[in-house]
Amino acid sequence: MTDTLRPIALHVQRETILAYAEITGDYNPIHVDPEFAAATPMGGVIAHGTMSLNLLWQSIAATLGEDALHRTNLDIRFVRPVRIGDTVEAGGVRLPERVDTWEVWVRNAAGEPVISGTATLVAP
Amino acid sequence: MTDTLRPIALHVQRETILAYAEITGDYNPIHVDPEFAAATPMGGVIAHGTMSLNLLWQSIAATLGEDALHRTNLDIRFVRPVRIGDTVEAGGVRLPERVDTWEVWVRNAAGEPVISGTATLVAP
Repeated sequence: MTDTLRPIALHVQRETILAYAEITGDYNPIHVDPEFAAATPMGGVIAHGTMSLNLLWQSIAATLGEDALHRTNLDIRFVRPVRIGDTVEAGGVRLPERVDTWEVWVRNAAGEPVISGTATLVAP
Repeated sequence: MTDTLRPIALHVQRETILAYAEITGDYNPIHVDPEFAAATPMGGVIAHGTMSLNLLWQSIAATLGEDALHRTNLDIRFVRPVRIGDTVEAGGVRLPERVDTWEVWVRNAAGEPVISGTATLVAP
């Protein structure tokens, strides 16, 4: 069993966020309206959380194989916003005391977690 | 506190999946290569799991407000594939015995869960 999940990175641009909104129908102004977003506690436009989470999904699939995706229980929190211009990277490391559980994260370029939690392989 | 999360639906088309691959860089052949996908246990192309999960995110934001997103602990499994032509809908209902936890799901048009789990509001 692999101890470390393969890192997967994404550079988030304004166009990325707008395209993500178009696909998902998620036109929440916090993602697409700079003026609105600036007046919120976020202080500006943020990326969709599930866009970053996809990187973790890619990381799990790349490391543990396709079939892991439908055997993974994901327990996560979105702990920091991702902003235009950020590069985020997903990864994970197996917990020493648990053969089936990885500590997982998505981090920004400063190394701060934007998503953090655990991924546990369960029976199919 | 609201007992029911507002339903949010998405119709998944081939173009949706291809665009999602382009944004996230997730060109896993299970998503983009019909011939490859047909030869796997999935039996054909499936949508990215995080695309469906975004609907749940929208549902939480629409019902509990923006700030809920960064206070939500999500514990989920991707239990069924989403295919081209499927319409999926996210929703949730508060657990009667827990004031801060919702049973959450994304379901296909047949009412089968494609994502299932819980969302728990935690301290900021």
